[in-house]
Amino acid sequence: MLLSQKLKLVLVGVFSLLTSMSFASTVDSLDVPSAVMNKTYKAAVVLPNSYAKNKASYPVLYLLHGGGGHFRDWLTSTPDKMLVKNLADQYNIIIVMPEGETFGWYLDSPYDATNKFETYIAKEVIQKIDNTYRTVKDKKGRVITGLSMGGHGAMYLSTRHPDLFAAAGSMSGALDMNYTKFKINEAFAQSLKDRFQKLLGTSDVSQDVFFKNSVVNMAETIKANNLPVTIDCGVDDFLIEVNRELHRRLVYNGTPHDYTERPGAHTWEYWQNSLPYHVLFFHKVLKTNGVTVE
Amino acid sequence: MLLSQKLKLVLVGVFSLLTSMSFASTVDSLDVPSAVMNKTYKAAVVLPNSYAKNKASYPVLYLLHGGGGHFRDWLTSTPDKMLVKNLADQYNIIIVMPEGETFGWYLDSPYDATNKFETYIAKEVIQKIDNTYRTVKDKKGRVITGLSMGGHGAMYLSTRHPDLFAAAGSMSGALDMNYTKFKINEAFAQSLKDRFQKLLGTSDVSQDVFFKNSVVNMAETIKANNLPVTIDCGVDDFLIEVNRELHRRLVYNGTPHDYTERPGAHTWEYWQNSLPYHVLFFHKVLKTNGVTVE
Amino acid sequence: MLLSQKLKLVLVGVFSLLTSMSFASTVDSLDVPSAVMNKTYKAAVVLPNSYAKNKASYPVLYLLHGGGGHFRDWLTSTPDKMLVKNLADQYNIIIVMPEGETFGWYLDSPYDATNKFETYIAKEVIQKIDNTYRTVKDKKGRVITGLSMGGHGAMYLSTRHPDLFAAAGSMSGALDMNYTKFKINEAFAQSLKDRFQKLLGTSDVSQDVFFKNSVVNMAETIKANNLPVTIDCGVDDFLIEVNRELHRRLVYNGTPHDYTERPGAHTWEYWQNSLPYHVLFFHKVLKTNGVTVE
Amino acid sequence: MLLSQKLKLVLVGVFSLLTSMSFASTVDSLDVPSAVMNKTYKAAVVLPNSYAKNKASYPVLYLLHGGGGHFRDWLTSTPDKMLVKNLADQYNIIIVMPEGETFGWYLDSPYDATNKFETYIAKEVIQKIDNTYRTVKDKKGRVITGLSMGGHGAMYLSTRHPDLFAAAGSMSGALDMNYTKFKINEAFAQSLKDRFQKLLGTSDVSQDVFFKNSVVNMAETIKANNLPVTIDCGVDDFLIEVNRELHRRLVYNGTPHDYTERPGAHTWEYWQNSLPYHVLFFHKVLKTNGVTVE
Repeated sequence: MLLSQKLKLVLVGVFSLLTSMSFASTVDSLDVPSAVMNKTYKAAVVLPNSYAKNKASYPVLYLLHGGGGHFRDWLTSTPDKMLVKNLADQYNIIIVMPEGETFGWYLDSPYDATNKFETYIAKEVIQKIDNTYRTVKDKKGRVITGLSMGGHGAMYLSTRHPDLFAAAGSMSGALDMNYTKFKINEAFAQSLKDRFQKLLGTSDVSQDVFFKNSVVNMAETIKANNLPVTIDCGVDDFLIEVNRELHRRLVYNGTPHDYTERPGAHTWEYWQNSLPYHVLFFHKVLKTNGVTVE
Repeated sequence: MLLSQKLKLVLVGVFSLLTSMSFASTVDSLDVPSAVMNKTYKAAVVLPNSYAKNKASYPVLYLLHGGGGHFRDWLTSTPDKMLVKNLADQYNIIIVMPEGETFGWYLDSPYDATNKFETYIAKEVIQKIDNTYRTVKDKKGRVITGLSMGGHGAMYLSTRHPDLFAAAGSMSGALDMNYTKFKINEAFAQSLKDRFQKLLGTSDVSQDVFFKNSVVNMAETIKANNLPVTIDCGVDDFLIEVNRELHRRLVYNGTPHDYTERPGAHTWEYWQNSLPYHVLFFHKVLKTNGVTVE
Repeated sequence: MLLSQKLKLVLVGVFSLLTSMSFASTVDSLDVPSAVMNKTYKAAVVLPNSYAKNKASYPVLYLLHGGGGHFRDWLTSTPDKMLVKNLADQYNIIIVMPEGETFGWYLDSPYDATNKFETYIAKEVIQKIDNTYRTVKDKKGRVITGLSMGGHGAMYLSTRHPDLFAAAGSMSGALDMNYTKFKINEAFAQSLKDRFQKLLGTSDVSQDVFFKNSVVNMAETIKANNLPVTIDCGVDDFLIEVNRELHRRLVYNGTPHDYTERPGAHTWEYWQNSLPYHVLFFHKVLKTNGVTVE
Repeated sequence: MLLSQKLKLVLVGVFSLLTSMSFASTVDSLDVPSAVMNKTYKAAVVLPNSYAKNKASYPVLYLLHGGGGHFRDWLTSTPDKMLVKNLADQYNIIIVMPEGETFGWYLDSPYDATNKFETYIAKEVIQKIDNTYRTVKDKKGRVITGLSMGGHGAMYLSTRHPDLFAAAGSMSGALDMNYTKFKINEAFAQSLKDRFQKLLGTSDVSQDVFFKNSVVNMAETIKANNLPVTIDCGVDDFLIEVNRELHRRLVYNGTPHDYTERPGAHTWEYWQNSLPYHVLFFHKVLKTNGVTVE
């Protein structure tokens, strides 16, 4: 090979390097049809910049939105709009933000047949993602977290499907569906009551459907599953006590887990601050599992 | 400029990039004389790889060792020997590990004139570092953390010298010098008793010297200083209750702070897991302060 | 009626008064045969002094002993040997101290057919007492408490038989059969392990038999039953954390209950101090129920 | 002595017995002038029925009212109007209910010269009581408790004057003057703010006058004094967290104390339920001190 050819090769490398730096990671808006709900929802998928440049299989972080929200929230509502993209790049992970509807609670409703978000995420979304992208198609390469209703969702799905995820997190999680435990005013409580009525067919929190679907009551299963878990909440959040309660139960029954209290309330500033810690937590797990892309 | 010259320039860039990747960060073993103790101790200083390549001023993390240990511990005792160096590189910070002696508690002893580690760190070490390296010579560019006795030390020094540090942390901190609060066996308690006797001239924990020098009793000052603070401890650590106590006091008096409980005990595995979270925490503060090196 | 006759009547009253003051309350040692265990155990029964002087029906306090003990402990082990008798007199209650064997846990063992103390107390003892004495033969006149294993027993029996008791208490209760939660040394833990092996056929605390028989896991049923409950423990007791845990769960799920922490450890001094508070608590319930003897 | 004479003596005894049963305990409304405030306030004094029948010296319970209230509250506001009188009779104690004004906080105000209730109670009331009645004129015969502001007052006075009282209690105590810790609505908070402004010359809770006068910050002194202390609060009380905080601090620093959480809120039903437990607690202390009247 001539020197000029060598130089050319080097230059290609240099330019591709520069290119990668100037181009942001890719955000796909993916149709993910649901057979069980007979409806197609979208998911946002952030591919790290490196994805297009190699043939590696990438671990996937499923990142759930909160009540009242939709799949795109994590991209549009954080003060720093590059947050999710930068984390995807920094840690070389695919970040999937699926739809959970404004009050779907990531469960299959025993009452509302149009609400089957547990099956949707656990089967349909994961399959679609694994079929569409070069993912680590295995539990050891999947992690899940979310905020508020999505924090509950991430813990709920990972606890009930321990074969699917390598680790789970919750930010400001509504870890008890018993909304009478929330420090909220009456108007807010009433709105939750109405929405639970529609979702579960009852707003009576003493009904078993509330108890058995609430993550706070799953401490024994969380222990048995033995997944790495990270939970945090702001001390001024109206959900702080339900988070403290799950933490205490996990301490009491001896379940290894990370638990953090931070300044702040139920805000996007809080979640922007929190997410990088979750990704660092997951990165350690994924690295131990040998599925990180270097 | 000819094309060949341009190529040459590009190549220089490429090679310098490759070089930087292959070379580890630099570790200096620096003599830091103490006038107040009339003795010279060493400090380990990790310079990030980028340090030699630009003219920027770098923020500094002071990283304190624990009881029974010495300045080099953080480089030699973590399972991953590259931990500190990699963090220095990843976040472009200088990491300084000063000497605190095996039972110095980072304070100026009212009894043992040879133990003046508060003055040593707060004045002599910082001056020496700022005179020796291209540091951000200002509070906004200095952060401090440590493990066990060093966790107490980091909180102690930052609380008493809020003009010196932008943020502080504690891992598995011995946040109360009142060792009767530790969950330890009698032999360990006796050894602490003996050592406190030598350090403070008393081992009677009801003496004011224990109370007023213990960080757990400084909740009001920590609040007034308003420094970002991150505290964590393993749930199986013999120091967990003293950490919980400071957390509760800071929650009660309304001091913003991060508090985390994680799996694990008083071990290097725990601290290896914890340190990256501290550095991420500090990085956010330093970025807000506008002193990070990109 | 002549004056002298009137005087005579008055005198009879006076003497009976004096008599009652000089005579202690009666302690019966009663045979209570068990059909289910095919064995006869004794119970101590303290009748208040007033019992012989009227025809009233008396409320009954069932007072359970702890592990390693027997029915007579409450009469022989308190520093003040008159404690139980004086309380019976002061509040006009019958106090029954039944046998629970040294490690019977007041349950029907699924493994050891000779251990059926749940049925024994809930059916056989209560029937025998109600057939033998002028008792209030109804839930509203029965209360139950105990110490340590007997504190668990009192809560266990009242929670599983809410039709039998008007209120329940626990002093220094071993409220979780999961002995790995106790702050005890290894020798003690080993002895508990051996005894649980014999009682339950397993010493593996992750087995469901431990979980489902432990009062700490019955917070929802305790809530549903809505019995007045009083729980206390000494802060230096090796069982303090299991007591705190049940308290926290009852606070969290909104179950009305009294919870007290006092100075002291797992000692008879503690229980002597505690019992009068329990009896005062029960007296209020019994008074509300209209079954006290004035 | 003739038989008839003997009978006569016996009859006198009988009648005095009957008389004592039909007569209620005495309630005095006593003028207690204050030199330091240049004003005379009234105190209610309940003498047990036995007081007039013997020459014994009686122990005294000082029972403080809450914010917005006055000296007579404990006699007029409990559902059972005989509560205090019956307790005086049952335990043979004098119960003194002094005036503390609607927002006097039982302290000597550094700002409002007309508010010197610390000196008033600690010196003037006690002297007047000891000069007026057959009291045990010594610390060992004096105990003190109260509700809400009076719970704080009882702890405040006993902690600052450990030479005066043998034991102290607090029911639903406002144990931190920092009213921002109370779970109250804004209107209530505003009214407290206004009143603290008038009492202390500031409503800024970060001022030292709030910190140093609040019992919650006196854990070390409470420990040093080593008085028997009983503290309780209802779980639905807006003051529950400040009570929990003092409890936690006393647990942490190893101060023996009784701490109880009960059902209920900031109501007279709660205090009616609570007071008998306090009197039982004090009775044990007084008995140990050898000053009870049998």
